Amino acid sequence: MAQFSIGVDLGGTNLRIAAVDEHGRILETINTATEVGRGRDAVVKEMSEAIRSLALKHHSAGSLQGIGIGVPGIIDMKSGMIRKSPNLPDWQNYPVKEEIERQLSTDVFLENDANSAALGEKWLGAGKDENDICMFTLGTGVGGGLVLNGKIWHGMTGMAAELGHICVEPEGHPCGCGSTGCLEQYASATAVRRMAREAIASGGAPELEKLAKDDRTFSAKTIFELAMKGDKPAQAVYQRAGRALGIVIAGMINALNLPMYVVGGGVSNSWDAFAPEMMEQVKQRSFVYVATLGEDPTAPPVQRTVVRKALLGSDAGLVGAARLPAVS
Amino acid sequence: MAQFSIGVDLGGTNLRIAAVDEHGRILETINTATEVGRGRDAVVKEMSEAIRSLALKHHSAGSLQGIGIGVPGIIDMKSGMIRKSPNLPDWQNYPVKEEIERQLSTDVFLENDANSAALGEKWLGAGKDENDICMFTLGTGVGGGLVLNGKIWHGMTGMAAELGHICVEPEGHPCGCGSTGCLEQYASATAVRRMAREAIASGGAPELEKLAKDDRTFSAKTIFELAMKGDKPAQAVYQRAGRALGIVIAGMINALNLPMYVVGGGVSNSWDAFAPEMMEQVKQRSFVYVATLGEDPTAPPVQRTVVRKALLGSDAGLVGAARLPAVS
Repeated sequence: MAQFSIGVDLGGTNLRIAAVDEHGRILETINTATEVGRGRDAVVKEMSEAIRSLALKHHSAGSLQGIGIGVPGIIDMKSGMIRKSPNLPDWQNYPVKEEIERQLSTDVFLENDANSAALGEKWLGAGKDENDICMFTLGTGVGGGLVLNGKIWHGMTGMAAELGHICVEPEGHPCGCGSTGCLEQYASATAVRRMAREAIASGGAPELEKLAKDDRTFSAKTIFELAMKGDKPAQAVYQRAGRALGIVIAGMINALNLPMYVVGGGVSNSWDAFAPEMMEQVKQRSFVYVATLGEDPTAPPVQRTVVRKALLGSDAGLVGAARLPAVS
Repeated sequence: MAQFSIGVDLGGTNLRIAAVDEHGRILETINTATEVGRGRDAVVKEMSEAIRSLALKHHSAGSLQGIGIGVPGIIDMKSGMIRKSPNLPDWQNYPVKEEIERQLSTDVFLENDANSAALGEKWLGAGKDENDICMFTLGTGVGGGLVLNGKIWHGMTGMAAELGHICVEPEGHPCGCGSTGCLEQYASATAVRRMAREAIASGGAPELEKLAKDDRTFSAKTIFELAMKGDKPAQAVYQRAGRALGIVIAGMINALNLPMYVVGGGVSNSWDAFAPEMMEQVKQRSFVYVATLGEDPTAPPVQRTVVRKALLGSDAGLVGAARLPAVS
């Protein structure tokens, strides 16, 4: 019998819910604001009602396989609780999974949102022909997801793939995690803005300075647009981002030798500004990457390592969440 | 029926062969010099004869499950050839596996020596109660091995776990791999000697200077002994090694969230000189490590992340090689 599932992308500002059939076709999507201020009980109730009505509406698509929920933050996989989520502060140590299962009488799979995005890209996006991918999600912060042998690699306590906190610059910018020089401090939207402000402060960045006058339009996107117009200081900001990302991708290639590394999240739309420097770093710092380019004619044929942009945009986390019941 | 296997540790200078029963008991070990100068055919012939006599002698221990060979260098897993090995230069693109299988009519499993060591430590050593471990082998260079779900993680082309070439200092010391600031440039025996020479050159390291007068005794071991006697410059050398190793271990904890990280190889005997700084870095740079210390009394109970010294010494690679037939 045909099956479908429901994926939820529970962000700090938006709540998206989709019914997805077993082939990955999105049957319907609901977008609402997450009214965090009304408290978790209100959000869970609203979410449960939306899921219920969506499930009823699409029951002709088959049986409901389960519900997957992607959440920003650290999930305790065993208990189904959110350990820590800066965007959902009052959800800490709240049994989300249990509560929604109780309200809906269906299996619920809770997952970190970056892991969900990696699973989404593996199922339907950039990695759909691969069993093993490593994904970086460049957003407000930098998240990561590892899919090994077709499944999310959780590690011992579900905290694996915190790729945004790999060190690229031991004496670098302080990070909220307690370390210094984490990838997140160079390749997130927050970092792009900070680095642009640093450029302004050190002088010689008049265009960035103009842009920064209006805080509402001073964003990773507008800084990218400036870089694409040829503004050197804006280009330098994205080169720093690309350099940091390239160092970490090279390290992950050397460590895991996967066939594919995917870069997604909002900042990945600035690909043209950071990817050239990123790829320079990958080539310089990963002989595993170079060896898998297959450019040595005397060597036996090899599979290639691919580093590419994500394909699904903000749907990655949503369809990935919907995929959770099938692969958990 | 009981089984035994034969493990081979084929180094650039030593050849060690052991018959190991299925419980990991070493029945007999043969140690000889690898007479690399006589050419690969002579080495393979001698090795095959030694394996054959060992197998015959111990056939009362059960049936021969197979032969595992650990080799320094990059292995092409599909073809069973050595892609690159600085210590065995004329073995490149030579079908070792096929050749030995032909001479012995038994299954042969070829593996990188650092991967074999990780498998050995997982089977009988530091990681014997874990399914997932990450091992660093600090020798002339720095090798790595990943065991995930009880098996060596090879990656796409068998080149995974090149942990010695993860970057810790983007503008650091040049590495033979083409990058700069690789872990290997700080945490190998070669690097310890180089850093000691740098300390001598910059002045104020009279004890190291005395030690360096005799090249035969100027080693990671004697520098360690000096550090243990309280010599500050020698201590600083090992602190740099510990710092680099800690940065990479923290990154691997953040990336993989494994229960155990093992440090082996000759330089690991200098544990007391580098481990304190290594652990400082791990704590500062991995919030995943900190979260798995279970020191927050309000948090649900967690498993702990352990970073520890390897237990098997130079036997790790040998017993790991013997384990290959059972887990490949």
